[in-house]
Amino acid sequence: MGSRAGERQKLATRLGLSVDFIPGDWRHGVDPAVIEQRLAQDRDHGIKAVCVVHNETSTGVTSRIPLLRKAMDRAAHPALLMVDTISSLASLDYRHDEWGVDVTVAGSQKGLMLPPGLSFNAVGAKALAASRKASLPRSYWSWDEMLGPNRSGFFPYTPATNLLYGLREALHMLMEEGLENVFARHARHGEATRRAVRAWGLEILCANPDEYSNSLTAVLLPTGHDADKVREIVLDRFDMSLGTGLGKMQGKVFRIGHLGDFNDLALAGTLCGVEMGLGLAGVPIRKEGVSAALDFLAGATAARPAVRLAKG
Amino acid sequence: MGSRAGERQKLATRLGLSVDFIPGDWRHGVDPAVIEQRLAQDRDHGIKAVCVVHNETSTGVTSRIPLLRKAMDRAAHPALLMVDTISSLASLDYRHDEWGVDVTVAGSQKGLMLPPGLSFNAVGAKALAASRKASLPRSYWSWDEMLGPNRSGFFPYTPATNLLYGLREALHMLMEEGLENVFARHARHGEATRRAVRAWGLEILCANPDEYSNSLTAVLLPTGHDADKVREIVLDRFDMSLGTGLGKMQGKVFRIGHLGDFNDLALAGTLCGVEMGLGLAGVPIRKEGVSAALDFLAGATAARPAVRLAKG
Amino acid sequence: MGSRAGERQKLATRLGLSVDFIPGDWRHGVDPAVIEQRLAQDRDHGIKAVCVVHNETSTGVTSRIPLLRKAMDRAAHPALLMVDTISSLASLDYRHDEWGVDVTVAGSQKGLMLPPGLSFNAVGAKALAASRKASLPRSYWSWDEMLGPNRSGFFPYTPATNLLYGLREALHMLMEEGLENVFARHARHGEATRRAVRAWGLEILCANPDEYSNSLTAVLLPTGHDADKVREIVLDRFDMSLGTGLGKMQGKVFRIGHLGDFNDLALAGTLCGVEMGLGLAGVPIRKEGVSAALDFLAGATAARPAVRLAKG
Amino acid sequence: MGSRAGERQKLATRLGLSVDFIPGDWRHGVDPAVIEQRLAQDRDHGIKAVCVVHNETSTGVTSRIPLLRKAMDRAAHPALLMVDTISSLASLDYRHDEWGVDVTVAGSQKGLMLPPGLSFNAVGAKALAASRKASLPRSYWSWDEMLGPNRSGFFPYTPATNLLYGLREALHMLMEEGLENVFARHARHGEATRRAVRAWGLEILCANPDEYSNSLTAVLLPTGHDADKVREIVLDRFDMSLGTGLGKMQGKVFRIGHLGDFNDLALAGTLCGVEMGLGLAGVPIRKEGVSAALDFLAGATAARPAVRLAKG
Repeated sequence: MGSRAGERQKLATRLGLSVDFIPGDWRHGVDPAVIEQRLAQDRDHGIKAVCVVHNETSTGVTSRIPLLRKAMDRAAHPALLMVDTISSLASLDYRHDEWGVDVTVAGSQKGLMLPPGLSFNAVGAKALAASRKASLPRSYWSWDEMLGPNRSGFFPYTPATNLLYGLREALHMLMEEGLENVFARHARHGEATRRAVRAWGLEILCANPDEYSNSLTAVLLPTGHDADKVREIVLDRFDMSLGTGLGKMQGKVFRIGHLGDFNDLALAGTLCGVEMGLGLAGVPIRKEGVSAALDFLAGATAARPAVRLAKG
Repeated sequence: MGSRAGERQKLATRLGLSVDFIPGDWRHGVDPAVIEQRLAQDRDHGIKAVCVVHNETSTGVTSRIPLLRKAMDRAAHPALLMVDTISSLASLDYRHDEWGVDVTVAGSQKGLMLPPGLSFNAVGAKALAASRKASLPRSYWSWDEMLGPNRSGFFPYTPATNLLYGLREALHMLMEEGLENVFARHARHGEATRRAVRAWGLEILCANPDEYSNSLTAVLLPTGHDADKVREIVLDRFDMSLGTGLGKMQGKVFRIGHLGDFNDLALAGTLCGVEMGLGLAGVPIRKEGVSAALDFLAGATAARPAVRLAKG
Repeated sequence: MGSRAGERQKLATRLGLSVDFIPGDWRHGVDPAVIEQRLAQDRDHGIKAVCVVHNETSTGVTSRIPLLRKAMDRAAHPALLMVDTISSLASLDYRHDEWGVDVTVAGSQKGLMLPPGLSFNAVGAKALAASRKASLPRSYWSWDEMLGPNRSGFFPYTPATNLLYGLREALHMLMEEGLENVFARHARHGEATRRAVRAWGLEILCANPDEYSNSLTAVLLPTGHDADKVREIVLDRFDMSLGTGLGKMQGKVFRIGHLGDFNDLALAGTLCGVEMGLGLAGVPIRKEGVSAALDFLAGATAARPAVRLAKG
Repeated sequence: MGSRAGERQKLATRLGLSVDFIPGDWRHGVDPAVIEQRLAQDRDHGIKAVCVVHNETSTGVTSRIPLLRKAMDRAAHPALLMVDTISSLASLDYRHDEWGVDVTVAGSQKGLMLPPGLSFNAVGAKALAASRKASLPRSYWSWDEMLGPNRSGFFPYTPATNLLYGLREALHMLMEEGLENVFARHARHGEATRRAVRAWGLEILCANPDEYSNSLTAVLLPTGHDADKVREIVLDRFDMSLGTGLGKMQGKVFRIGHLGDFNDLALAGTLCGVEMGLGLAGVPIRKEGVSAALDFLAGATAARPAVRLAKG
């Protein structure tokens, strides 16, 4: 696991929770077999929840939640399955009910294309029951505080009205395009980016093709090259801000985001900026990444929702 | 004390804090003598902080923080003085350092004229030292989380960038008008509103003229009349939403807000809506409130900042 | 006729047209009998068009187009009927086809609630045929320039795309409220304003109650009082800009606009500003105008479209 | 000369002006020698003005105004020099006074980065004197209508206030970047685009390198290929709208705009879209245009104004 998971570990520890953190190599998603084994060993059910990040923002690795759910079922362990979907919701396919997730957490500022400020919790019956028995002190974060007023259409605190209007519009936009088309668009952009990376002769941080993220790609630089220098050049020369490597990946990777309100030519311009920045930073690459991405994008079938033109 | 203070009591209790709540009659501010007495009795300094609300949103009562500070000094008690200024900051005069406050809390959505989403903490050295020794579990709310990155110009989480730009503009607007003029404008609107209430023959909830709030006024209805019916009529007929009575004041009072980006004619229109709504609801009033407010507003000296025209 | 008509006279004369301008007293609309007589005298049909302003922005007088049409029909004269509806369209009832108008001109910046920048021409077949035979030099203003491309959904010049999007939203808003309700709202505001003027003891410039404008009211001051001084005081003290008297009415009248996106409390605030300004300027009035307007507004039946809440 | 000039010819003819239109081959700018000769032949000074387009939007050719001025001076002819700078002002260097231009016309919707709606006329003393003697009927377009009220800070008609605020901000942005940097940026983008066109193996419509436009480039397709089909594919597949060939160039060229608020990566994304679209349309190209543009952009020196960061 990577840095988003790491932050959550720190947070939980501070709140007095005992965390059994399973370190990963930052290049693979959560391993269902390891989870299954750990739960099987926990005979007295001391483990209350398995917390995973669906799409690791720091590494570009997407864990396979359905496989994880099956592993937990095989272990016949009552722990809750809690999933962070901050950088995947509305960009990658995700199914809270169908996949048997107990708690899903999301935010407004990525795939929902809004400013930060709204967070969403999808909470199943089992998780709600557990929360009512939990002794962890909480007030603002308490689900019951929100659920009561929500039932009658109210919000217990000053509501972020402007963001709620924005959310309505964002959902209209997603529905107008069609969720299937949204996911296909991100899949197309993920694949085009990975083809560019390979054509440059660089390595994708995510080592398992089944776990490639379609909302962002982390790119490993050859030893001796500073990813932050590349980022600095790209920002300074081309006014584009790439993601930095987080934690132990700092300086070793940079991250290309391709999520939310994004289209083929915005991605193409992004990859052009990366290709020029790599060259200017002296990273030894083949300048064939943009070309490989364009070949793929031009060949891809881009679904265009019929409803689009009807709006005008 | 009123409902905002009440909410804070509930919150603190949930987090495991022992709260010595001093109930009030909802018509007066915090009584310095009572605080002094309570602190004097606390010989072993079990009380860690005196928490007060500067301007009670639910009652329209402004507590006098300097008198409170003096009372605490007379008791020679080391408790921290913590003040909630949500509905007063940038509308009413307030001085964190000069008044000897240890922690001041504010928000973006009232006098700062922004959407909700930003909160501000002014923290003195004594409070900071206390927080570092405190054992209360916390993570997101921890001052140290913020102070470290802030020093180098960073924000530890996804920043609400759009609100920060809005904040810069709001501060420009306040400085352009001049804080003295901003406070005088709110004082003028508070007085005009109170004159209207008296001319209608109704009672102002705040019983102490030294504690009248200049950012909102709560109006008591005669027994047998429902304040929420007045509010409903005003909303339905005139598209204006008055504040409801909170807690034990529900149905007995309605609240007129007069803070933030507000001018004489917006106030006049507001009072017209209230006067018509009271009449339509069958509340026995003299229809002389608007007239009294206009007499006062026309006679008041409205400072107009010279810088205003320079902008164009 | 008043100043808008006067401007059009000046414009036409400059373009080489011979204008037979029928002066009025600025307090009445176009007199159908005078038009009928003039047309009857024009035996050889030298007059090509009767040009009138539906709602005179400078005087607050609304001419009765249907009566005018009937007068033209009685004279059996082939002149075109051309109507300027700049300050009436979408605020006052107006019917191009039903009333037998040949050319109607409108703009985006009044009842359509948009910034200035769009103008609209409704052109009947008879007018179109006449324009094709006309020898007046023209290019940008030529209808044919627009009609050709419009047929296939195009615009012959750089289109004001942002205003066209705004127009679509403005039309949605008007339809959501319902045109009948829009007209009733303006009628209510016109009547409330006139009651205020009479209660102040002042005179409405429009002398014929059948021709009162519901989108603006011009108020005559007693001899010896300067309307522009009132306007200056209101602007300086209350940040509200009243319309100046135009042409020969300068200094004698000020104008209160009540059109477009406007509701009862905005009107009430407006009248409060006028009442205070009149007092501060030393104009001898009874301070009972606001009160009279509120009595009327509170008693009026305000239709609230059922569709309103459905939006949320 | 091209289509913008052609439109102006049509317009002038309609207004009754006699136009001596000098046709060009659409691939070169105005030829100073031809102008000089024509003026020299006009011994009785029947020609009142030489009207040229600085930057032909339809062809991507920039005429050299200083050379033209010298030619007119050599002919010692009193005709006015009138220049249309719609698609060049604030993108390409242009000097009304220094170059001896009498009338310069511009608009808000190109280099000034605003919606359409404002037009600007720079008028020298000689032109103003001529306009006062002119008998051409005019009203709205009359300079005197505007000059009088402008002197005291007023506007003779309903002003486009929102666009004037936008203009102020646009000018701030241009000054913040520095006009020299703005022109250098457009020169960089023009050159990068031309290198892409050549690398694709296609022809630039503008045949004279001294007259290349830095705000747009028209690209000629090989015989038998339909430029509008390329445009349609690019719009449909990549949501980018390229300019159509105008007049006799329709179907033969498409136009790439690179003016206004535009940066290196926006241009790169644009060229990617063109390269993919050409391929999808079956136009025989070498897929090396983007690569050539990136090589140039990466090697170019991009001035970054020091003031940029100070804003934050």
